[in-house]
Amino acid sequence: MRAHDETLMTHASTVLVETVPALRDRRSQVARHYRDVRSLTEALATPLSAEDQTVQSMPDASPTKWHRAHTTWFFETFVLVPYARGYRLFDEAFGFIFNSYYESIGPRHPRPSRGVLSRPGVEAVAAYRAYVDTAMEGLLDSADRDVVDLIVTGLHHEQQHQELLLTDIKHAFSSSPMFPRYAPEPVAPTVAMATPPEQWTVNGGIYEVGHRSGSDLEFSFDNERPAHPSLLRDFAISDRPVSNAEFVAFIEDEGYQRPELWLSEGWTTANAAHWEAPAYWYRDGRDWRVYTLHGLRSLRLDEPVCHVSFFEAAAYARWAGRRLPTEFEWEVVARQFGKPELGPKDVRAHPRPLRGGMRQDVWEWTASAYAPYPGYSAEPGALGEYNGKFMINQMVLRGRSCATPSGHERVTYRNFFPPQARWQFSGFRLADDR
Amino acid sequence: MRAHDETLMTHASTVLVETVPALRDRRSQVARHYRDVRSLTEALATPLSAEDQTVQSMPDASPTKWHRAHTTWFFETFVLVPYARGYRLFDEAFGFIFNSYYESIGPRHPRPSRGVLSRPGVEAVAAYRAYVDTAMEGLLDSADRDVVDLIVTGLHHEQQHQELLLTDIKHAFSSSPMFPRYAPEPVAPTVAMATPPEQWTVNGGIYEVGHRSGSDLEFSFDNERPAHPSLLRDFAISDRPVSNAEFVAFIEDEGYQRPELWLSEGWTTANAAHWEAPAYWYRDGRDWRVYTLHGLRSLRLDEPVCHVSFFEAAAYARWAGRRLPTEFEWEVVARQFGKPELGPKDVRAHPRPLRGGMRQDVWEWTASAYAPYPGYSAEPGALGEYNGKFMINQMVLRGRSCATPSGHERVTYRNFFPPQARWQFSGFRLADDR
Amino acid sequence: MRAHDETLMTHASTVLVETVPALRDRRSQVARHYRDVRSLTEALATPLSAEDQTVQSMPDASPTKWHRAHTTWFFETFVLVPYARGYRLFDEAFGFIFNSYYESIGPRHPRPSRGVLSRPGVEAVAAYRAYVDTAMEGLLDSADRDVVDLIVTGLHHEQQHQELLLTDIKHAFSSSPMFPRYAPEPVAPTVAMATPPEQWTVNGGIYEVGHRSGSDLEFSFDNERPAHPSLLRDFAISDRPVSNAEFVAFIEDEGYQRPELWLSEGWTTANAAHWEAPAYWYRDGRDWRVYTLHGLRSLRLDEPVCHVSFFEAAAYARWAGRRLPTEFEWEVVARQFGKPELGPKDVRAHPRPLRGGMRQDVWEWTASAYAPYPGYSAEPGALGEYNGKFMINQMVLRGRSCATPSGHERVTYRNFFPPQARWQFSGFRLADDR
Amino acid sequence: MRAHDETLMTHASTVLVETVPALRDRRSQVARHYRDVRSLTEALATPLSAEDQTVQSMPDASPTKWHRAHTTWFFETFVLVPYARGYRLFDEAFGFIFNSYYESIGPRHPRPSRGVLSRPGVEAVAAYRAYVDTAMEGLLDSADRDVVDLIVTGLHHEQQHQELLLTDIKHAFSSSPMFPRYAPEPVAPTVAMATPPEQWTVNGGIYEVGHRSGSDLEFSFDNERPAHPSLLRDFAISDRPVSNAEFVAFIEDEGYQRPELWLSEGWTTANAAHWEAPAYWYRDGRDWRVYTLHGLRSLRLDEPVCHVSFFEAAAYARWAGRRLPTEFEWEVVARQFGKPELGPKDVRAHPRPLRGGMRQDVWEWTASAYAPYPGYSAEPGALGEYNGKFMINQMVLRGRSCATPSGHERVTYRNFFPPQARWQFSGFRLADDR
Repeated sequence: MRAHDETLMTHASTVLVETVPALRDRRSQVARHYRDVRSLTEALATPLSAEDQTVQSMPDASPTKWHRAHTTWFFETFVLVPYARGYRLFDEAFGFIFNSYYESIGPRHPRPSRGVLSRPGVEAVAAYRAYVDTAMEGLLDSADRDVVDLIVTGLHHEQQHQELLLTDIKHAFSSSPMFPRYAPEPVAPTVAMATPPEQWTVNGGIYEVGHRSGSDLEFSFDNERPAHPSLLRDFAISDRPVSNAEFVAFIEDEGYQRPELWLSEGWTTANAAHWEAPAYWYRDGRDWRVYTLHGLRSLRLDEPVCHVSFFEAAAYARWAGRRLPTEFEWEVVARQFGKPELGPKDVRAHPRPLRGGMRQDVWEWTASAYAPYPGYSAEPGALGEYNGKFMINQMVLRGRSCATPSGHERVTYRNFFPPQARWQFSGFRLADDR
Repeated sequence: MRAHDETLMTHASTVLVETVPALRDRRSQVARHYRDVRSLTEALATPLSAEDQTVQSMPDASPTKWHRAHTTWFFETFVLVPYARGYRLFDEAFGFIFNSYYESIGPRHPRPSRGVLSRPGVEAVAAYRAYVDTAMEGLLDSADRDVVDLIVTGLHHEQQHQELLLTDIKHAFSSSPMFPRYAPEPVAPTVAMATPPEQWTVNGGIYEVGHRSGSDLEFSFDNERPAHPSLLRDFAISDRPVSNAEFVAFIEDEGYQRPELWLSEGWTTANAAHWEAPAYWYRDGRDWRVYTLHGLRSLRLDEPVCHVSFFEAAAYARWAGRRLPTEFEWEVVARQFGKPELGPKDVRAHPRPLRGGMRQDVWEWTASAYAPYPGYSAEPGALGEYNGKFMINQMVLRGRSCATPSGHERVTYRNFFPPQARWQFSGFRLADDR
Repeated sequence: MRAHDETLMTHASTVLVETVPALRDRRSQVARHYRDVRSLTEALATPLSAEDQTVQSMPDASPTKWHRAHTTWFFETFVLVPYARGYRLFDEAFGFIFNSYYESIGPRHPRPSRGVLSRPGVEAVAAYRAYVDTAMEGLLDSADRDVVDLIVTGLHHEQQHQELLLTDIKHAFSSSPMFPRYAPEPVAPTVAMATPPEQWTVNGGIYEVGHRSGSDLEFSFDNERPAHPSLLRDFAISDRPVSNAEFVAFIEDEGYQRPELWLSEGWTTANAAHWEAPAYWYRDGRDWRVYTLHGLRSLRLDEPVCHVSFFEAAAYARWAGRRLPTEFEWEVVARQFGKPELGPKDVRAHPRPLRGGMRQDVWEWTASAYAPYPGYSAEPGALGEYNGKFMINQMVLRGRSCATPSGHERVTYRNFFPPQARWQFSGFRLADDR
Repeated sequence: MRAHDETLMTHASTVLVETVPALRDRRSQVARHYRDVRSLTEALATPLSAEDQTVQSMPDASPTKWHRAHTTWFFETFVLVPYARGYRLFDEAFGFIFNSYYESIGPRHPRPSRGVLSRPGVEAVAAYRAYVDTAMEGLLDSADRDVVDLIVTGLHHEQQHQELLLTDIKHAFSSSPMFPRYAPEPVAPTVAMATPPEQWTVNGGIYEVGHRSGSDLEFSFDNERPAHPSLLRDFAISDRPVSNAEFVAFIEDEGYQRPELWLSEGWTTANAAHWEAPAYWYRDGRDWRVYTLHGLRSLRLDEPVCHVSFFEAAAYARWAGRRLPTEFEWEVVARQFGKPELGPKDVRAHPRPLRGGMRQDVWEWTASAYAPYPGYSAEPGALGEYNGKFMINQMVLRGRSCATPSGHERVTYRNFFPPQARWQFSGFRLADDR
């Protein structure tokens, strides 16, 4: 084994000295954060009619109004009920309807049937949000540090649902022969892509990965902790995700017809679902049209390929003679090369054309199964159900997507989905051993 | 074989002399009918929010706004496009979305996915209805007799969907833990029921059944024609449908647990779906609560049993040592005893307590499979797909229900559903051989 | 209504005077019958290996050894246990394994899992048959008339399973890429078919249909009784079933691609199952090859079309501008024209080329749903479950097939299968109104 | 990070000097191995009748005769066809029937339908085996080193199927109400178990894991390679798997009713399948009876718990406040403590009572998802499909089971199954961080 990279090990062993902000400052900071996040959710729902907000197009997706109410229910259930003296529930039935997967909180409405619930309607949901917001503002004036931390968790939870709100309505709209437009398309200049991408090479060694606890300056989910050393080999990784142009070459080389490129379960899945391209692609003679939240339009070759499953990413990698990076390879590179891009405040409805860098506009499938870190322990109580209980049959995605609210992403962030999922803004980049 | 009933045979051979109304009168009569029917549909949708009108709770049901638009699409497609000079489609995509089962008109949106369509919304549907109504009014001023007949068919088609609108929203609401109320419950006095019901006896013989064509005074669907002789044996039939009180006795005698009472497929169906009572019944200790369009409330024992499948009706009949009447037995009795009740103009959201008579507030399952009458011929073209193509694996129901618009029912009317269907207002009465 | 056929009415009202055979003669007659039927079952199984007799290729089919044992279990359960003094069960577990659908006899092994049972093996089944046969011979020496009748029922039950034994192994063999041959093909001369078939015309009137009870010279199942008058219209019917040549014309005219020809449920079924021809047909360029129990070979155009569902029969009839006959039309014609063909003693593994006549080598789908006759009453006890409980979602087939054991068929015989079933030797003939 | 264990690192860096045997010796060694393995397969099938060898009780299982033929097909396809001059296929159809998952070799008979194939029967399979054995013996006399290696791969492949042969017939037999006995039960003395088990502790550090290539003394599959360093933390691990006694305590503490103990997908799976105990357990009042290949008998508390899924193992671990070991933790401990037990030559049909040690009679679920090792490359051609294509949604099991043929197991061996699989002899042991 060769010597590991000294620079990075320094990073791993540095003790961060940080000034813990006074509780008062923290409260007002979080109160601002609370207002920002809550109003972004409402802004994202604004283009959607009452009918739009009601439909559910598949079991994995949820109606917009459910997202709006479920994120509110989170604050009511985990913050207001235990900590706000004299708080009265907005409506007792909501606990049943808007609970998602917290088995220990009681029975819940079955996920595939969320689209059957017409009541409460969007107006009642708006009233629910306003009622809870008022109570939360009152509570934030006097909350202690633990409660403030809990609220921050609730805000990150809501940011996750902001992204799902967009991917879910995209799926629903794509089921309509009217191909509704969620938002007008912004103008984006065409990008001239270097072909092939540049390769970054990384020396093997022991690197720290995961999120350092001890700092309350940055939030993290329990599945990112504890930070721990990881042993990597020498490897190389592309400086950008795979593009639509590159993926079209895979399709034209009959990538979807060659079983030797695919994982066995991927092949079965692709055939059963008649996949012949990424989700939302439609053949138009020899060209492709794509449904986006800006409507149906021609495929842009300079965008990152998106809405592919892990199975498709793995088949492409085998076709290209390379492999997907592990989540730790991704993280180490992102720490070294991946200056966090300071994006605009709001989310985008579609990925921009590719530039180089680690944090592009698509989530990136990695070769890593979603598993607990060494020493992982779930948070106690119902919140502990949040991440750990899904640690099976899911693959980790790293990075962010166009629909990820700014401030939500982190270099240690672990997104995860089953290998067949395609409705997220999911792409991938390639790596190989050196 | 004994002599048949002379009186009825007279009926069968009488030539009706009727005055055919002048075309002008007929046009204005149908125009009034058109306005009445179209406005009743809107009135039925009025208590429902945009969200309520969007949901679909099972493949057999459709969203309210789909019913409103589909019935409009019928007039646009079968009347305006072929007969209204210069008519322009309201929206080309609607032909795809609101076609139901008319295969010959082109591809159609898959039925189980109607609840995924948020667009067009209720406002667009209202605009569609207004647009078509305006064009129809213009057309009616000058329509010839064939077109007028076609419009009448469209109105009866819309009346069928008025009933479905109610049964479908009832199913959707019942899926909600909030058990929404569609309308307030009217006051109904308790009825003292004779136990057991009276029996009407009918002599065997040859009776005419089916709808006489040749008269354009009364509309009929093709499946009611031609009128033809039918040979019946002596039989007796109850003067009223089975009541909730009687059906509770069946449940308490373990009717749902005794396979010898059930058709084989009924037993399988009941077990797979965990039936232990009619649809919308919920155990409440030793009593029953029922979901109605007036909300969740206690079971009334003096109402007809409702929301039972053919399988349950047949099991009950076997348990009671009797049988279901055939559709012709039902029709013959209804002709003899069944004075058409002159009900109020609007439909009701729930059956009233039982009175004697043939046309109560529940459809009645018969022992007859839905099949063509001797000499039946389907109407030509797409309209011919309307009834004939469903003549398999369905049983005939006769009578009417609370949700049947007045003026829509007839003594020859043949309703039909698969034997496992329970979401209609379906009950039954008993008969036996004499 | 025109006068009915006098000759047939005479038949209907004649009181048959028949000499009831002495009980002793009847016993020895039935004992001979018993030996014949039981040994035919064994003869039919002889070409099949232990492995062949074990497999089950779909839920509706059963393994050969199951048929051999189930028919034996019938005698053990319904005859020996109640009537043979001191009889001891061969094996207690068999009651569970070889019960088919007699819910009242106790729990039963789920039908779709019969192919999972390797034990008891064919040798044990042979021993079971021999054990029961010995006991039955003893019993027959002294059985009273009721028990003798019960035994005859068991023999007809076994004959039904002889036919299923062949259709079930055909289905299983067809699933094998080796296309095994059950028996060598006999030589059959080519038949020159008149095109189109001759039409027999029948005057409308009241005809007796169903099986006369009162005679114990001929066995009948309860579903054929009681005999009763039926009112028919004038009609015409082909003198032979539809041929392969005719059905090929339907296929070539895109009969499987035209929804307007099909019942709605038929269209859905055909598309889901990718039907494009009768079962066991395989395209071979522009020709067809067919799997038969004699192996895979070219289609013979002069054979009756076979292994079609009711849905295909109905679509063909609509395409041909005609209809299927009702079961009573069929029966009336068979009584008038249908001299029972005195066939060979054994069953055949494949239909012979078409000749004219009512009792050809394929069962014939009729337009009649399987329903109880007026005045029908099921036999009491477990045997009563035999026929009545299937009277839903099934269509009646009349006639016989090549696989029907001689002596089992009758002009009043009612076979029945769901409209989608294709694995029986099922064809059809056409009729129309006159 | 603390210093790693020097001793083990020595192992990792030692260069093994081994004498490569002469090709001639290797040929005769492999010829002996060939005869041993092939005859063990036949010995395992001997207690099974032709019928037993034909049935398939679920899609994941295969009939015994399929295992016997598929392993033979492997030698025919991958060894004889390419390397035995003038070899003629035994039967061309076999390539279709007995191909399992090698997509690149051509179409294959669908896995869930293997139980439908009665032909070829057991006698034909025996003839096939003999035919191939003769050809293989001839080939082995002159095979070069690569071909000899290929044959060894085929033998290990056959050994895997020997284990499956037993687990598959166990599943099939368990579906029978007769609960057949595969073999008589040997006498095993009761073991007094220390409660709780002893804990072995291991210091963290860098350990080599995986199989060293370069040596042809020991076979390995591609998924065990390359050997590579792995970074472990301090941990402790039980010296034996969890016992039936311990698992009964979990059941009695309502482990199957508490969602907070389960992975989300595990909870869904357990509920849908109505799990309330390991597979093959049946409640008998307050006790348990278990189906084993020795028949149905009482549960022995001193045996390792067996036939549990990964989901149950993970729920138990959470209940016990511990976790499952990773596959590398398991391997490191097995290298240090796990003296390979020199067992008898033949496999056993049921686990023996627990003793301490790493290689007990049940496979052990680990916390590791089945993924490629760093630097993994699949073998080229069809054989390369063997392992790599399953590297998704599967968990690694380590060790061996009673049904693993001696000589097949290795400390680096990676078995893998989906987390819901229960029909293997699968148990688990617990670990935790130190």
